[in-house]
Amino acid sequence: MISIESKFTRLATDDAPGQEVRQNTEHLKGLLRGDKLPGTPVDFSHGDVNANAFAPTPGALGEFVRGVERGGEQAYTEYRGGAELREQLASRLAGFTGAPLSGANEVIITPGTQGALYLALAATVSAGDKVAIVRPDYFANRKIVEFLGGVLVPVAMDYLGRTAEAGLDLVQLEDAFKAGVKTFLFSNPNNPAGVIYSRTEIERIAQLANSYGATVIVDELYSRLLYPGRDYTHLRATGMDPANVITIMGPSKTESLSGYRLGVAFGAAKIIDRMEKLQAIVSLRAPGYCQAVLRTWFAEPDGWMAQRIAQHQAIRDDLLEVLGSVEGVVARAPEAGSYLFPRLPKLCVDLQTFVRILRHQASVTVTPGTEFSPDATDSIRLNFSQNHRAAVQALGRAAELVDRYRA
Amino acid sequence: MISIESKFTRLATDDAPGQEVRQNTEHLKGLLRGDKLPGTPVDFSHGDVNANAFAPTPGALGEFVRGVERGGEQAYTEYRGGAELREQLASRLAGFTGAPLSGANEVIITPGTQGALYLALAATVSAGDKVAIVRPDYFANRKIVEFLGGVLVPVAMDYLGRTAEAGLDLVQLEDAFKAGVKTFLFSNPNNPAGVIYSRTEIERIAQLANSYGATVIVDELYSRLLYPGRDYTHLRATGMDPANVITIMGPSKTESLSGYRLGVAFGAAKIIDRMEKLQAIVSLRAPGYCQAVLRTWFAEPDGWMAQRIAQHQAIRDDLLEVLGSVEGVVARAPEAGSYLFPRLPKLCVDLQTFVRILRHQASVTVTPGTEFSPDATDSIRLNFSQNHRAAVQALGRAAELVDRYRA
Repeated sequence: MISIESKFTRLATDDAPGQEVRQNTEHLKGLLRGDKLPGTPVDFSHGDVNANAFAPTPGALGEFVRGVERGGEQAYTEYRGGAELREQLASRLAGFTGAPLSGANEVIITPGTQGALYLALAATVSAGDKVAIVRPDYFANRKIVEFLGGVLVPVAMDYLGRTAEAGLDLVQLEDAFKAGVKTFLFSNPNNPAGVIYSRTEIERIAQLANSYGATVIVDELYSRLLYPGRDYTHLRATGMDPANVITIMGPSKTESLSGYRLGVAFGAAKIIDRMEKLQAIVSLRAPGYCQAVLRTWFAEPDGWMAQRIAQHQAIRDDLLEVLGSVEGVVARAPEAGSYLFPRLPKLCVDLQTFVRILRHQASVTVTPGTEFSPDATDSIRLNFSQNHRAAVQALGRAAELVDRYRA
Repeated sequence: MISIESKFTRLATDDAPGQEVRQNTEHLKGLLRGDKLPGTPVDFSHGDVNANAFAPTPGALGEFVRGVERGGEQAYTEYRGGAELREQLASRLAGFTGAPLSGANEVIITPGTQGALYLALAATVSAGDKVAIVRPDYFANRKIVEFLGGVLVPVAMDYLGRTAEAGLDLVQLEDAFKAGVKTFLFSNPNNPAGVIYSRTEIERIAQLANSYGATVIVDELYSRLLYPGRDYTHLRATGMDPANVITIMGPSKTESLSGYRLGVAFGAAKIIDRMEKLQAIVSLRAPGYCQAVLRTWFAEPDGWMAQRIAQHQAIRDDLLEVLGSVEGVVARAPEAGSYLFPRLPKLCVDLQTFVRILRHQASVTVTPGTEFSPDATDSIRLNFSQNHRAAVQALGRAAELVDRYRA
């Protein structure tokens, strides 16, 4: 039995995105080379939702206000979210993913996709259960499994070595199932690498999960922001047993609605039922008035999403050009979403220290790769959903510091 | 090791407040006596936040909108909530509770007080730990402890047998500590009974917790809505070791702000730290824009709270009069908050069935006492934060059905 003390030590958030303000920089003295680099601060740990970057979906606040005006019926929904809204979402999500969905029984609205992830894992994983997760993948996946007392079984993804697929090691995945893994969790597009799993990879995952009777939780948070020419396969629209798959999405990223804390999980009714029971004691429900904002989701103005994708693509390409000019940096162009996960050359300070130096000397906040994989000691994640000009300049400053601290 | 199946069976929400819409009434046929009673439906399972009952604090929506306008800084706060807001809250809560508080280290903003309760318990209780809870008390307390694998040690409260105190069995509480209980959780004012713990009771709780080195989590959600002449003692302002006490409050009830999902936990920095780490994987943070609404909290217009208390008192007194007219009903007048927890006479159907009949025949929704204590098989809870006239009429209909179904 693990002590509660060590359980929480493992949950350390010191280097987690957004928590940097709680760090102090005393220990950097003596390590610093050269002066501070002036420029507009950019926080690449999350997207910028301000008006000069990527503002929330048009009409979101209006729907919120109308929700407040509806009063009690909007404030006190079922724990799983308002019934009418779930029907509307089910129809839209069935259309988007290409497989049928029941609003009554197969959808739950949660406080952010973070809430959905936690509930989905807690509804499927007990202490001692083996859970397969990808390296690298979203940092909270590992932490949630550990908090629940699950046993992590990592599966490698060679995202830098491939181009036509994400690079999941499917042999390792099968070995994990053979070793008793009953839950597999992964993000697609991958966070942090921005790569999309190929149809072949997704179909193989479905086949393996069916063979071994495993549950798969797939975080498709970024699946709407696909760059031109990219195909995307929804696991739930393959041969995967529908009783064993939960899909998670939400409007916090592409749609810039994070401030409303909304996520959606959909799929297997039995797991959704459990998630609702747990939500009842964890947070009761997604904020009632905020739920109303989901009415704008998948109902954005014509052309809005296409424009948003084009804007992100332009930033992505400029940032890749900056990275390409730095000797020793290796980056794969993201195929979806707004994350870049470049590998840096060998530096004279460790990754955590370099990340703090970036913040201190260049006003650039990034997330160390080790949040996503213990192996990623040489990578940083950047969310490039930022003001275009500021982002390019900030990455230029980061490049200058890579040179300055090169080993 | 308990299976995940049975873990979730214990979390049943079928009779939980707000979930009644998921019930069907097929099985009532054959049991029903007489016709339906016409009248405005009243849902006593939660307060009514509509304009003709108890609307949210004036200015709440305005603060929300200003929060949205602030953009990213409001959307992406630290996981524990915005720093400036925490300072403001710390100052107000220190004043209200009568003991100092650090906004930097001793306050966390959560998705509702439900979120605070879950995090506080998960930060202190490991599988196998003994946790004392009161009977009756808020229904989620038991469920959270069970979900965490804790062992419940009930402590009785004789709320109907006392008047000058809540009626906690302090001998049982000491026995619980002697038996190894390290966490004690209780609501004050008590939910569902609406009674306030006396200074003597609170000081004894502090003394016992100090003697046995136990952590106490006190849910003070209703501590602002005190009826005239009532004294209230904040546990954190007694001799209780500040390193072992967490207080929970929020604006969802008296202030009718439930639709914004806001709660606050404050106290021991070490526990607050853990709660933040856990919040990072459970929901990231309380909804960013909603946090701005807390600026209105403890800063309501002059006289607003006094008027709100007077309105609740008037409803309470009229409802007590209705209850007093029904033979065999026993009710203690609530000293704070908006819950009534009357004991009903012996009926010809069981409590769950009677509660469903009330909803079916009288359009009156109440919560069965068994949600709060396995012993409360003859009690119902009513949240009387309702339209005054509709509530009195609805309770009249319920009284008629008590007579109709009397054993």
